[in-house]
Amino acid sequence: MSPDNVVFIGKKPTMNYVLAVVTQFNSGNSTVNIKARGKAIVRAVDVALITQRRFLQNVVVEDINIWTEEMSVGEDEWTNVSSMEIVMTIKE
Amino acid sequence: MSPDNVVFIGKKPTMNYVLAVVTQFNSGNSTVNIKARGKAIVRAVDVALITQRRFLQNVVVEDINIWTEEMSVGEDEWTNVSSMEIVMTIKE
Repeated sequence: MSPDNVVFIGKKPTMNYVLAVVTQFNSGNSTVNIKARGKAIVRAVDVALITQRRFLQNVVVEDINIWTEEMSVGEDEWTNVSSMEIVMTIKE
Repeated sequence: MSPDNVVFIGKKPTMNYVLAVVTQFNSGNSTVNIKARGKAIVRAVDVALITQRRFLQNVVVEDINIWTEEMSVGEDEWTNVSSMEIVMTIKE
């Protein structure tokens, strides 16, 4: 999977990311991977569901994976942060 | 699936829900369903990953589902809220 079809969810408004996902599908990708960490996980779920409900009814959630990442929070300090990816794909 | 093995995630500390999940597995359930809506979704992911990493290494995330629910926010007012369930099960 090329980095092209990954959308990282940050702190911008939800609709910015929805637009990014829709754009990637419209530019020919058959799969888009929505990734988020920590509190942005909620927004990732919103983005996936809004994309499907309002914009691309032919797209489905193919897979959702969760895992823990270690994140640096300072000099020699690390914390665990939950991470998620939502794989969306065009329905056959 | 009986309601017994569903853990609804709310606003309490994360470890309260981890304890609830661990208790359900320890009382004989082979599957526990973690459910959350809106901002609690992040906590649901934390609960699943902490349960697995710190307490029950023989438990895996079997399935994750997301969907949209309509929620009443006042007299004749409704809003959409993202919902999630994480199905955890004992590894064979």
